[in-house]
Amino acid sequence: MALIVQKFGGTSVGTIERIKNVAARVKRTREAGHQVVVVVSAMAGETNRLVKLAYELDPEPVSREYDVLLASGEQVSTALVALALNRMGVPSRSLLAHQIDFRTDATYGRARIESIGANQLAACLARGETPVVAGFQGIDPEGNITTLGRGGSDTTGVALAAALHADVCEIYTDVDGIYTTDPNVVKGARKIPRISYDEMLELASLGAKVLQTRSVEFGMKYRVPIHVRSSFDESEGSWVVPEDETMEQVVVRAVTYDRNDARISILRVPDQPGVAAKIFSVLAAHEISVDMIIQNSSQEREHTDVTFTVPKSNVLEAERLMNPLAKELGAEQVTTDTEISKVSVVGVGMRSHSGVAAKMFAALSEAGVNIEMIATSEIKISVVIDEAYTELAVRVLHQVFGLHGEG
Amino acid sequence: MALIVQKFGGTSVGTIERIKNVAARVKRTREAGHQVVVVVSAMAGETNRLVKLAYELDPEPVSREYDVLLASGEQVSTALVALALNRMGVPSRSLLAHQIDFRTDATYGRARIESIGANQLAACLARGETPVVAGFQGIDPEGNITTLGRGGSDTTGVALAAALHADVCEIYTDVDGIYTTDPNVVKGARKIPRISYDEMLELASLGAKVLQTRSVEFGMKYRVPIHVRSSFDESEGSWVVPEDETMEQVVVRAVTYDRNDARISILRVPDQPGVAAKIFSVLAAHEISVDMIIQNSSQEREHTDVTFTVPKSNVLEAERLMNPLAKELGAEQVTTDTEISKVSVVGVGMRSHSGVAAKMFAALSEAGVNIEMIATSEIKISVVIDEAYTELAVRVLHQVFGLHGEG
Repeated sequence: MALIVQKFGGTSVGTIERIKNVAARVKRTREAGHQVVVVVSAMAGETNRLVKLAYELDPEPVSREYDVLLASGEQVSTALVALALNRMGVPSRSLLAHQIDFRTDATYGRARIESIGANQLAACLARGETPVVAGFQGIDPEGNITTLGRGGSDTTGVALAAALHADVCEIYTDVDGIYTTDPNVVKGARKIPRISYDEMLELASLGAKVLQTRSVEFGMKYRVPIHVRSSFDESEGSWVVPEDETMEQVVVRAVTYDRNDARISILRVPDQPGVAAKIFSVLAAHEISVDMIIQNSSQEREHTDVTFTVPKSNVLEAERLMNPLAKELGAEQVTTDTEISKVSVVGVGMRSHSGVAAKMFAALSEAGVNIEMIATSEIKISVVIDEAYTELAVRVLHQVFGLHGEG
Repeated sequence: MALIVQKFGGTSVGTIERIKNVAARVKRTREAGHQVVVVVSAMAGETNRLVKLAYELDPEPVSREYDVLLASGEQVSTALVALALNRMGVPSRSLLAHQIDFRTDATYGRARIESIGANQLAACLARGETPVVAGFQGIDPEGNITTLGRGGSDTTGVALAAALHADVCEIYTDVDGIYTTDPNVVKGARKIPRISYDEMLELASLGAKVLQTRSVEFGMKYRVPIHVRSSFDESEGSWVVPEDETMEQVVVRAVTYDRNDARISILRVPDQPGVAAKIFSVLAAHEISVDMIIQNSSQEREHTDVTFTVPKSNVLEAERLMNPLAKELGAEQVTTDTEISKVSVVGVGMRSHSGVAAKMFAALSEAGVNIEMIATSEIKISVVIDEAYTELAVRVLHQVFGLHGEG
């Protein structure tokens, strides 16, 4: 008998029919002799509907109330799944964040988990019931409702699995696993059977949307195996697990891309100490997150160009902040480019294999793709290129690193 | 400075525009120097949407989960009203049942209030904030979510007013007060400026939908003045208040009708002790509420006819229960009639004025309306008549008891 956390995303509970399917799956798992804790997101479309209502009232809604509003979506789906389970003869009860003392800090909209009242859930399981827990929501130290940010139900699932020492956290979604790259771009993309937490973390932060980054961090920290699989069939999905030796045999695990960034350059800044600090402290003060940063000194060594990327949604604000600063610093010009994309290769095998970067850059060059920026970590290499070449670059890299499947 | 509870029904918060109007009204009340506690229902249509979802899953939904589901509707409207208030510069926070320790018993679907954590609300008011409380919902002694039944937000409002010793509970709705009868039926219907709790209780239980019966009971018990008024204009509505001497000067305060009952007759039951007990204990065991009961002995004194009314929605079930019982009791036949209505006149003045019943029956007789059943209390007389004569009877009684207005 295993203890399994099954987390179902918005599309998996998007209609009454699908909710019945979810309940049927939970029932089968119970009948196979396992204990199940269910975690659900809001029904697909529901969160967007609520967001729209809030923004009609206030373009900058008060974050405390915004969280109360959004958390209602999970209350609905949680109750419906519990109804469906009871209907099928599986004793079940919905549990909201405050009912299991799911404590977070008070950062509305992206609260961080502090502790979970596992006793309540354990008692529920001991009574033979199947708890259905509302994902995404928490309560702060004063009992206010908080939310964990978009995709936060993944984190709820993995955190519960950690707190209950569950054997696995199954993440049911509308895709059947994690792929070597986007199957919409590359026909030969293959499902990855096993991937390490480190690799998954890189993929998640590089634009792969299948798991929320923080859920992977939780899984890694508490060693919870995460099984990403489809809610529409029974096929084995992808396991996110601790790294093992066999994993290093593959140099590149996956190729990913992200079109959501824009580039800003501040050209010919007089090269003085503290220039970069000034620029990035202004951006930080306005909560604009900066991804890649490059600073090139110009030939005469008196001026420098500072280039960085920010989310496209922040580019106008960032430009507005940089213009007066550039003037103040004596820089020549601020330029922006929103037609860029970031293409990355990820793999723990890079740690033991050299020449990955060289191979990557050569392949792109041969395909006529110009590299505008480069960033690397121990297990990933990212390049910024002209957005128009995104698909080409992804296909070329997928091929050259041997990820293509038979099909 | 007064402390005012303002309760807004589903139509009053049915759209974003209307929510803004609600917030504007609360703001005006604050600016007039008063403290306000807001109570809201779910947005119009939302509860029905949720009910439909539940019944698609299960025609007999588990009541615990059903309440969790329905309570989400008030969570949404509460958050939206708090957002709107903050947007208008009125510091405000939404409060759900568990956040103010709004305790009820564990009777899901129609829970009874046990206690309210008024400290939390008082602290909120002391900070200068305007609390927006979710109506309709409570928590039971184990922290499960309960609901107070349809229209339960009225009761939330009045109960909060009682707990906080508020000066008044204002009930904002889509009509501008309580009328001498249904203005859709009688053009000359007039708004009643002041009505006693007793009268309002009778009206509410006789089919007038403007206030939930239990909210009036609460108002009466704790002497909370209730002001029923329109959320769409500023006009004075109707006050529900303790009875005073001037009230008795009007014999009949209002005429009301109810088409929701059906009549069941068990004919020629051998007249033995315990017959009625058997019949009504079966109905009670199936939670079918019986309103009026008449038992006539037949001429020969050996048989009796038992006639009673039940809600139309229960008539098939009641008939199904009565058929075998009638056989067992040796009765001749069970008949049902769903085409009936109950027309009532209500007024505390009846206590001191005789001849009201005679006047009522004579007026109906003159109009050719046949009376099928009669029930009376100290301050009301109800008759069951053929449904087709409902409007006629209401108009005749409204006229004969001098309720017609000038218009």
